[in-house]
Amino acid sequence: MEKMSQEEIIEFLVEGTFTGKVSTINKDGSPHITPIWYILDEDNYVTFTTYSKSVKGKNLLRDSRISFCVDDQVPPFSFVIIDGIAEIISESDNLLVWTTKIAERYMGKELSNEYGKRNAFDGELLIKVIPKKVIGQKDISV
Amino acid sequence: MEKMSQEEIIEFLVEGTFTGKVSTINKDGSPHITPIWYILDEDNYVTFTTYSKSVKGKNLLRDSRISFCVDDQVPPFSFVIIDGIAEIISESDNLLVWTTKIAERYMGKELSNEYGKRNAFDGELLIKVIPKKVIGQKDISV
Repeated sequence: MEKMSQEEIIEFLVEGTFTGKVSTINKDGSPHITPIWYILDEDNYVTFTTYSKSVKGKNLLRDSRISFCVDDQVPPFSFVIIDGIAEIISESDNLLVWTTKIAERYMGKELSNEYGKRNAFDGELLIKVIPKKVIGQKDISV
Repeated sequence: MEKMSQEEIIEFLVEGTFTGKVSTINKDGSPHITPIWYILDEDNYVTFTTYSKSVKGKNLLRDSRISFCVDDQVPPFSFVIIDGIAEIISESDNLLVWTTKIAERYMGKELSNEYGKRNAFDGELLIKVIPKKVIGQKDISV
């Protein structure tokens, strides 16, 4: 097991179609987890969108603490974990720009407009994960 | 997007070397997330081990509420989420049996004894996720 460099962490975060798994806190204090599509913004903050009435949307509006994880699921196993605070942007003028960029990562350039529009709902929140602690580990099983 | 059947959920949970991502609650109420190796036990409960002094070990000993997620990270994207309660077995007589079975899934038969021993620490907890709510969704992007 070895620590990733800052550069390796960023490379890992944008690799292929890796999805993020985000954990938020439910109203009763229990944990909630869900996979997300995301990209890094110009400051390398994890950026995703979620509907304001979704469980994670409602959770983040109430308690902005968030924990984020990406891993590759194959030997020798590597992962990145980011603990942070969600910056929540409601009614972003650029929502469609973000949903289209995010869709491009996961569905490809050709389908990005279609999926970008599909995901740019009224009431969709733009979320940025402002990191407090970042861990990147590679070659866990070595 | 389509709901998975119970059978499809179980097949998905044991596919290849998919890792689980588990979310637990830190002492200050913030969320904690981490990837895990796991298998299903004879009752199809998600089963893993963790050191009692690890963050997730300490968290579960204080608050056994747990949220678990597996996804495939490739189009058309599928996932399973299990919200439940962690049953915690300290000083299991069968710890080495479980760590070896789990290692076999991720590292293969040949290395399973080596990795099983490596993971059967004194102080290692055996955890079973007793489900309260299970969601399986397939073909999310279709």
